[in-house]
Amino acid sequence: MENKNISILGAGLVGALASIYFAKRGFKVDVFEKRPDFRITNSYGGRSINLALSDRGWLALEQVGIAENIKKISIPMYGRMVHYQDGQTQLQKYGLEGQAIYSVSRGLLNTELITLADSNDLVKFHFNEKCEHIDLHTNELSFVNSTTNRNSTINPDLVLGADGAFSVLRSAMQKTDRFDYHQWYLPHGYKELTIPAKNGEYQLEPNALHIWPRGQFMLIALPNLDGSFTCTLFLPYEGTVSFANLHSTENIIQFFKDNFLDAFELMPQLLEEFEHNPVSSLVNISCYPWVHNRAFLIGDAAHSIVPFYGQGMNAGFEDCRILNDMMDNYNSWEDILENFQKSRKPNADAIAELARRNFVEMSELVANKRFQLRKKIEGRMNTLYPDQWIPLYTMVTFSPHISYSQALHKGLKEDAIMEKILNIPGIEENWQEMDFKEYLDNK
Amino acid sequence: MENKNISILGAGLVGALASIYFAKRGFKVDVFEKRPDFRITNSYGGRSINLALSDRGWLALEQVGIAENIKKISIPMYGRMVHYQDGQTQLQKYGLEGQAIYSVSRGLLNTELITLADSNDLVKFHFNEKCEHIDLHTNELSFVNSTTNRNSTINPDLVLGADGAFSVLRSAMQKTDRFDYHQWYLPHGYKELTIPAKNGEYQLEPNALHIWPRGQFMLIALPNLDGSFTCTLFLPYEGTVSFANLHSTENIIQFFKDNFLDAFELMPQLLEEFEHNPVSSLVNISCYPWVHNRAFLIGDAAHSIVPFYGQGMNAGFEDCRILNDMMDNYNSWEDILENFQKSRKPNADAIAELARRNFVEMSELVANKRFQLRKKIEGRMNTLYPDQWIPLYTMVTFSPHISYSQALHKGLKEDAIMEKILNIPGIEENWQEMDFKEYLDNK
Repeated sequence: MENKNISILGAGLVGALASIYFAKRGFKVDVFEKRPDFRITNSYGGRSINLALSDRGWLALEQVGIAENIKKISIPMYGRMVHYQDGQTQLQKYGLEGQAIYSVSRGLLNTELITLADSNDLVKFHFNEKCEHIDLHTNELSFVNSTTNRNSTINPDLVLGADGAFSVLRSAMQKTDRFDYHQWYLPHGYKELTIPAKNGEYQLEPNALHIWPRGQFMLIALPNLDGSFTCTLFLPYEGTVSFANLHSTENIIQFFKDNFLDAFELMPQLLEEFEHNPVSSLVNISCYPWVHNRAFLIGDAAHSIVPFYGQGMNAGFEDCRILNDMMDNYNSWEDILENFQKSRKPNADAIAELARRNFVEMSELVANKRFQLRKKIEGRMNTLYPDQWIPLYTMVTFSPHISYSQALHKGLKEDAIMEKILNIPGIEENWQEMDFKEYLDNK
Repeated sequence: MENKNISILGAGLVGALASIYFAKRGFKVDVFEKRPDFRITNSYGGRSINLALSDRGWLALEQVGIAENIKKISIPMYGRMVHYQDGQTQLQKYGLEGQAIYSVSRGLLNTELITLADSNDLVKFHFNEKCEHIDLHTNELSFVNSTTNRNSTINPDLVLGADGAFSVLRSAMQKTDRFDYHQWYLPHGYKELTIPAKNGEYQLEPNALHIWPRGQFMLIALPNLDGSFTCTLFLPYEGTVSFANLHSTENIIQFFKDNFLDAFELMPQLLEEFEHNPVSSLVNISCYPWVHNRAFLIGDAAHSIVPFYGQGMNAGFEDCRILNDMMDNYNSWEDILENFQKSRKPNADAIAELARRNFVEMSELVANKRFQLRKKIEGRMNTLYPDQWIPLYTMVTFSPHISYSQALHKGLKEDAIMEKILNIPGIEENWQEMDFKEYLDNK
């Protein structure tokens, strides 16, 4: 590894974490970000669905010794709080005692990562720098500064595209021969809303991820540090029940009263926010290869996924950790990058598929009796046979040493077995006495 | 239809034909092409697989009265001539007596279409004009002339992107929200080679499309007017038998002797051509929507397909005819364009799928006894029940009033029926006496 300087495009979550990883290895790192410095503006012009940090993310943070810093701005959520149409609620635990996913604000997290990275002399951030051109043969990058209008070029040894779903580096790669590329949108959009704090207090259980599952659409809410919740309404763009059909004050109020009455009563700014906040789209992006000479993609630039498994950021952080492993294991950049993309691509594809499927789980199945029974039986099996039966959600969320593609593969086998178990006559009454041993052997 | 001026990007086959269609309706048409005028340079810098014009293409040409002009530069091919490894050949007819597909040189055809279009005062061609920017809100187009370096802008009522697989208009659309886009490459590449004329004479049967089917790869040859054949070798990029492994003179000669001995003996320039001609990639492109305000895509810009059904150009020409029908049937551009894309998209998807599948038919099945028997039985059924049984190849190639998606749909049903018929004990001997009536009723 002769190369000791790298330019990272994008100071988002993954770009900032990658800069810390490279600096730890002694690289000189330049990070170029087209937006202003988040630390100064205090406004965050990006996607802002509240994030859920889980074990893959934590492991990647731990490896560079910054997990504790992030824990301070995170709120553990031990389960889903399902809100039924009749106002009843039900807590469904995510895992074993103490296992949690962590709610964190994208803006706060990003600011913290940049501050941590910037404390290293080897890392330099360049804000307001829009990348205008990339020469993939020479690794020459051209920028224009949006405040000074000044042009600059740089010629680093390595270029890392951590510049998100609309990556400039990926656009350049797309014009090269034999680059496979796919972007496609869900029929659903999303809109952010707020449940504010009341006298500084949370108005819902803070240590849970709240879901109002309504089949073709849903509302979710994640806690913030200040006692508020950030809510996200996922709804089709078009059709009978859709954003297109929520066009009047009466419509909106009626829709919320009918479907989310308990939340509606906690949302005094609903109408203002509904009018003011945009409907954002949900995109899948997949591509290959991720590497072109000495330029390569990471995080959302390489694999943008829908948010329904809470794994987009975690997958990007895991990219950083795996890339670091590759630098431990191989000596030349050819080998490091080739093994990185070969190893990560199937996992990126697997979590993309899992995330798409999980929309159905979140918006529909969590309210389904059979599904709830399945979860209970799986919990029992996991307790009885902790090494032989790990539920899919646990593999994805709490088992960072099981890869996403292994998790998907094992999850499909589990589905088949659980189908059989759920069809056992009397299973509803008897599951707590059964040991399911014969079903394990089929694995 | 208040708008009477249109700018077409691309003077390729579809752009040139579209200009004729629009001029016939009284539009003022400007066609912008980044390459030099093909009529002057006499060199043609585009994809050059020899093309096969079939009934969909002819119908689109007839509707603007230019089919006869094109027939003069086309050579009918009544069937496939299969060349077996042992040197034997076998002619497999494409359809009924007189039904043919027509070999035509892309360069000659394009030149003829431009000449025909240019004879209309309403059409103006602008060569060497590279489109640098498209504003999808205002329909403002910016060009730079590659010979004069002069910049120009134009602001037409309508913009038609007929600018092929690497469409500039589609690139602009790709940056708009909720634009679905997919480009993916086959593992195969292709290389063009030549079987020259001998004393001005064809060295193979001229009225056939020659195929050397070898499973994972194949060679094909289409006749030219001058007595030569343009050959195309389709071969994987990587692997045991691949372009990557044909790296020495000995390799190449041995490969051709082993697999295409009869052709090899007719190719005196093989080694020079093999070295000089590039390996080109094979891309699928699909996207949606095709329309953004008053700008829209057509032909390869909207749907690039692989060449194995000989339908890429025919589908693009059919786009022109269907668009013209929509202008007959609707009055506003909103309705015309919306109905155009809604109607064409499923057909573009269907021919893309059919084309991918046909690689297996061309490179493998045509040499397969069971497949040949199937073709014979289908021929008999088509003769007995011409309205009830139309073989898939005939629907796609000779039945322009059956849409591609109908053809695909009916073809799948036919597959299921033929599976049953081919499993009838003794079918090999008895098929000529059978009437297969009971199988028809299953349709």
